[in-house]
Amino acid sequence: MSEIRVGIIMGSQSDLHIMSEAAKFLEEMNVGYELTIVSAHRTPVRMINYAHEAKKRGLKVIIAGAGGAAHLPGMVASLTSLPVIGVPVKSSNSIDGWDSILSILQMPSGIPVATVALNGGKNAGILATSIIGAFDEEVSQNLEKFKQSLSDKVEESAKNVEELGWKKVLNS
Amino acid sequence: MSEIRVGIIMGSQSDLHIMSEAAKFLEEMNVGYELTIVSAHRTPVRMINYAHEAKKRGLKVIIAGAGGAAHLPGMVASLTSLPVIGVPVKSSNSIDGWDSILSILQMPSGIPVATVALNGGKNAGILATSIIGAFDEEVSQNLEKFKQSLSDKVEESAKNVEELGWKKVLNS
Amino acid sequence: MSEIRVGIIMGSQSDLHIMSEAAKFLEEMNVGYELTIVSAHRTPVRMINYAHEAKKRGLKVIIAGAGGAAHLPGMVASLTSLPVIGVPVKSSNSIDGWDSILSILQMPSGIPVATVALNGGKNAGILATSIIGAFDEEVSQNLEKFKQSLSDKVEESAKNVEELGWKKVLNS
Amino acid sequence: MSEIRVGIIMGSQSDLHIMSEAAKFLEEMNVGYELTIVSAHRTPVRMINYAHEAKKRGLKVIIAGAGGAAHLPGMVASLTSLPVIGVPVKSSNSIDGWDSILSILQMPSGIPVATVALNGGKNAGILATSIIGAFDEEVSQNLEKFKQSLSDKVEESAKNVEELGWKKVLNS
Amino acid sequence: MSEIRVGIIMGSQSDLHIMSEAAKFLEEMNVGYELTIVSAHRTPVRMINYAHEAKKRGLKVIIAGAGGAAHLPGMVASLTSLPVIGVPVKSSNSIDGWDSILSILQMPSGIPVATVALNGGKNAGILATSIIGAFDEEVSQNLEKFKQSLSDKVEESAKNVEELGWKKVLNS
Amino acid sequence: MSEIRVGIIMGSQSDLHIMSEAAKFLEEMNVGYELTIVSAHRTPVRMINYAHEAKKRGLKVIIAGAGGAAHLPGMVASLTSLPVIGVPVKSSNSIDGWDSILSILQMPSGIPVATVALNGGKNAGILATSIIGAFDEEVSQNLEKFKQSLSDKVEESAKNVEELGWKKVLNS
Amino acid sequence: MSEIRVGIIMGSQSDLHIMSEAAKFLEEMNVGYELTIVSAHRTPVRMINYAHEAKKRGLKVIIAGAGGAAHLPGMVASLTSLPVIGVPVKSSNSIDGWDSILSILQMPSGIPVATVALNGGKNAGILATSIIGAFDEEVSQNLEKFKQSLSDKVEESAKNVEELGWKKVLNS
Amino acid sequence: MSEIRVGIIMGSQSDLHIMSEAAKFLEEMNVGYELTIVSAHRTPVRMINYAHEAKKRGLKVIIAGAGGAAHLPGMVASLTSLPVIGVPVKSSNSIDGWDSILSILQMPSGIPVATVALNGGKNAGILATSIIGAFDEEVSQNLEKFKQSLSDKVEESAKNVEELGWKKVLNS
Repeated sequence: MSEIRVGIIMGSQSDLHIMSEAAKFLEEMNVGYELTIVSAHRTPVRMINYAHEAKKRGLKVIIAGAGGAAHLPGMVASLTSLPVIGVPVKSSNSIDGWDSILSILQMPSGIPVATVALNGGKNAGILATSIIGAFDEEVSQNLEKFKQSLSDKVEESAKNVEELGWKKVLNS
Repeated sequence: MSEIRVGIIMGSQSDLHIMSEAAKFLEEMNVGYELTIVSAHRTPVRMINYAHEAKKRGLKVIIAGAGGAAHLPGMVASLTSLPVIGVPVKSSNSIDGWDSILSILQMPSGIPVATVALNGGKNAGILATSIIGAFDEEVSQNLEKFKQSLSDKVEESAKNVEELGWKKVLNS
Repeated sequence: MSEIRVGIIMGSQSDLHIMSEAAKFLEEMNVGYELTIVSAHRTPVRMINYAHEAKKRGLKVIIAGAGGAAHLPGMVASLTSLPVIGVPVKSSNSIDGWDSILSILQMPSGIPVATVALNGGKNAGILATSIIGAFDEEVSQNLEKFKQSLSDKVEESAKNVEELGWKKVLNS
Repeated sequence: MSEIRVGIIMGSQSDLHIMSEAAKFLEEMNVGYELTIVSAHRTPVRMINYAHEAKKRGLKVIIAGAGGAAHLPGMVASLTSLPVIGVPVKSSNSIDGWDSILSILQMPSGIPVATVALNGGKNAGILATSIIGAFDEEVSQNLEKFKQSLSDKVEESAKNVEELGWKKVLNS
Repeated sequence: MSEIRVGIIMGSQSDLHIMSEAAKFLEEMNVGYELTIVSAHRTPVRMINYAHEAKKRGLKVIIAGAGGAAHLPGMVASLTSLPVIGVPVKSSNSIDGWDSILSILQMPSGIPVATVALNGGKNAGILATSIIGAFDEEVSQNLEKFKQSLSDKVEESAKNVEELGWKKVLNS
Repeated sequence: MSEIRVGIIMGSQSDLHIMSEAAKFLEEMNVGYELTIVSAHRTPVRMINYAHEAKKRGLKVIIAGAGGAAHLPGMVASLTSLPVIGVPVKSSNSIDGWDSILSILQMPSGIPVATVALNGGKNAGILATSIIGAFDEEVSQNLEKFKQSLSDKVEESAKNVEELGWKKVLNS
Repeated sequence: MSEIRVGIIMGSQSDLHIMSEAAKFLEEMNVGYELTIVSAHRTPVRMINYAHEAKKRGLKVIIAGAGGAAHLPGMVASLTSLPVIGVPVKSSNSIDGWDSILSILQMPSGIPVATVALNGGKNAGILATSIIGAFDEEVSQNLEKFKQSLSDKVEESAKNVEELGWKKVLNS
Repeated sequence: MSEIRVGIIMGSQSDLHIMSEAAKFLEEMNVGYELTIVSAHRTPVRMINYAHEAKKRGLKVIIAGAGGAAHLPGMVASLTSLPVIGVPVKSSNSIDGWDSILSILQMPSGIPVATVALNGGKNAGILATSIIGAFDEEVSQNLEKFKQSLSDKVEESAKNVEELGWKKVLNS
């Protein structure tokens, strides 16, 4: 794999099914990453070390996901000058996701977290890619191709609906 | 002042008008306390030190208040085995207080915060007093007197309304 | 079992699957407790007697859980000077838990309830332990060991993910 | 004044500006009432006595208003077989009124409270009148006249707008 | 069956599983009732006739249930001087019940609806019984017996938990 | 004024400052309208007559505004086959506008209301114009000119900011 | 099929099960329509072309549905002078539908979208029909017949419940 | 000023008081930027051109702010591969900011927006700086100094409170 530029962390292994979407996308874009588990509340010292070392170890972006009263993204952001992308996870103890969203998004002045949609693991991967891509033309072109493929899929399904008729498509 | 048993901390000096209500109540109850400013996001190391030292320094309860994505109470709770009382503050950057409440209340399994009502600085002081009072009969009796005074005030205002009539009371 | 220091009550037997988590934790910590059913709305006199007797009977903390318009924790808090921990239960008649949370958390000035997360039965048990532990070194050390075990589990799952790779962990 | 058939209670004198609207309306309808202050949290014994005596003293309906975690209406309803009308008050410690509404409305099966709109003191008075009026033709006719007057006022303002034109009305 | 004193109406047959709980309770209390379907939006004229005739036909209380933008209870209340109990139904098109609740509860000044909890069909039946019972001692005594039975069930389940222990009860 | 094609109604004169925005816009577009007050709850018969006569009197669109539990738009929609535009008004008794929005928007299947933004009186006028304009080229061209003017204003303020610099613009 | 007067578009094929309800209704009303897929975010240029051509191609109304941060209806409304009906879809990434509703409903002044209820595909079809019907008597009469059929079904189910009794209907 | 690397856009001049905070911060960090007004709904073509040209013109990050149904950040993100930071603005037509937040945050899979807190103009500037700084050591060191100054201010106000006592600080 290429040089590791993105760190993906999450508060618990139960967040892995959401956060692995970021990893999958970075692989497709050929952006090097690492992935591990760091809990703000259960391993605060580990979290501090991770955040303090991140830049020295060559990371450019950190993606952090957590659920409920989700403090990991904001705490990591307070401990590094790297951009931190926060993924609110609708975990089993979350109230429809509102707690996860608000405790990641509503950071005080001085310590922003780049928040993506609820359970938006893949979007976090895309956002990290766009940040890397702003300074790396090869990555940028990979991202452009991905965006083109999104467009192609819509065009195709539009053609499908128009040619077959919506009734066939709906029942297929 | 008597032995310091309660630590009151807050994320910013702008929370002082709410959090000082806890201090005021503890003074009335003759419970020793200290009060200072500790920010989870702006002074993470200071926060860790505060939480790690709290028990050794003789504290029995910590009261922590913060607004917006309020991580201070939960982070302190992760760093000490003392009970932590959380006060959600409706700060200027808060969305009607919902962010403050949810990011303090909805802590994950393992790390509870004893959350009180929005802007409930005084109630945090009362709760701390009830905790101390469960193990200190003198404090408990002070608290009982306070509860009696609440009751007396209601009885008095009831008597007032009944005797004067609500129209006079409303217009006074 | 050791001396009974925590009383666990709930509004209905249907809350038992949540509230028993508190009991389980207290057993692990070797903190004596009792558990019964007391309804604010269906047995108001029983509730008053329970609250009035609690301190005399040696309890140090009361844990009260209820759902919907949940009045049990607040009413008990109004009737005792002991600290009361409230557990909002997402019962079948609750609107996503919001009613349970707000009717426990938003107590008026003078009568705090130490509110934990929705369905946070276990966290109520942990909070009660931390209160007892602030005045009982043996309990405090049990709690420290528990907190260490939380940390160990995260370290272990981190090691697992790092060594096996997230794909294997996700598919296992 | 005529026989007292409606009891109006509230948790605090600060609710009087809302709850007095009920009293005012009952006076206009010539329905006898009494009004006093009873706090569920600060005077629980007074509340129990009030509720237990209400029916014996001849009351037909109780109107209870409170704010925040508002337990008064529900607790009174648990202690009497009379219909209880609940008025959620947007008090200073309330989160936009949501806590008041949910802790009055969402009563568990078995103990209903007839909840009216936020700050709906006058509507509580009207609802009490309609309950009395269902069994007392004179009261019913007073209520019909009031409803007619509401209609007349709308017709009049419609006529005003149509004849003068909305621009004049808006600027007047 | 005894004299018909309560009318139960609902916007759609799909509300019947909720609203029939009111009917069942009234039968147990020996309070005569009728039940039918009246839609504010699909049969506005039928609704007007129903509301206009209700009092003449001897009804004392109307119970009206509806979901989503639920206008039936409020519109009926505007057309009669009888007390109207509104039941917010969490129908398939409702947003977690919030639309049903707010469009029934938040009636403007002049036209109250006695709103009960979401899906509170049974509570509507109990509230109607308490209204009838305020003027009919036999009904009142039936209601008292019901309230006693609620209390007995809690006492019994408390005894059960205390004697068997919560582990056996939880696993039974 | 030209032929009357739009009827503007509102539940109360207090809604006039919002609803007059629709009237003002229709005047600018040279679309004939009428404006009056019709209350669903206070003048139900007047409402029925208005809705039943609307189409016969030549109206093409009805704009209806109301606040709180806002039943006027939906009830009128149930009584006519004309398109009804609903304006949720944040009236004094509304909970931040949520009740107004949900009781207008969430109409059951069969009876839609074309809902616009909270307090969107002007947008209701624009929507009515676009409906008329779809079948009347002159009106359509007036609307196109209005849309162009919106664009021009943005271009102008962009030019302003770019040329003067944001600091001057902000301080002017 | 008759002349095409309504365009139905949606952001993704996954919205088809909701949006096809509009198509089905228009067929029943004999109103010509077309249906295809246009994504604001994945095919922005396609969206612009669709909106710019719509009026020239003879469309009178556009129905646009989307979920989550739903920009399609509002963006199309900004690009055409035709009336645009917006359908908030509760897609898999939506927070209980609130994001879909608010990002369609709360359009800024100048660019209204005629928003219908969450998942209200059928209601969008009915609203489009009422717009066409305001200018086409044949369509209007089809719509009147549909509204009559809604009324007939309620009358029939009312008769059913009244004659068979609710117990039989509920158990059938 | 140094090379322009950040583009700041907003939907309306009324957002300038929020968005200028981003500009001010970038100036302090010595990061070149441009600022203008681009409306998704009023100038869609201008928006498309801006987004299409941004990368070619050398921008690395776009900051976009808007209120209500805020489509600007998401639409721009769909039109460029650069990272887009979204600022939800609590504009006059916004419902407490919830509409702004949800219509920016909840972007569908494929098109992320890096969302910051409500009215978080300054935080958007800080986040843009951290992105630039990940690839530019000089900028990174400016950011580190800023973070240090935040910490210093907290330490100073802590010292102040501890030395003067909270009563003096509160009354000063």
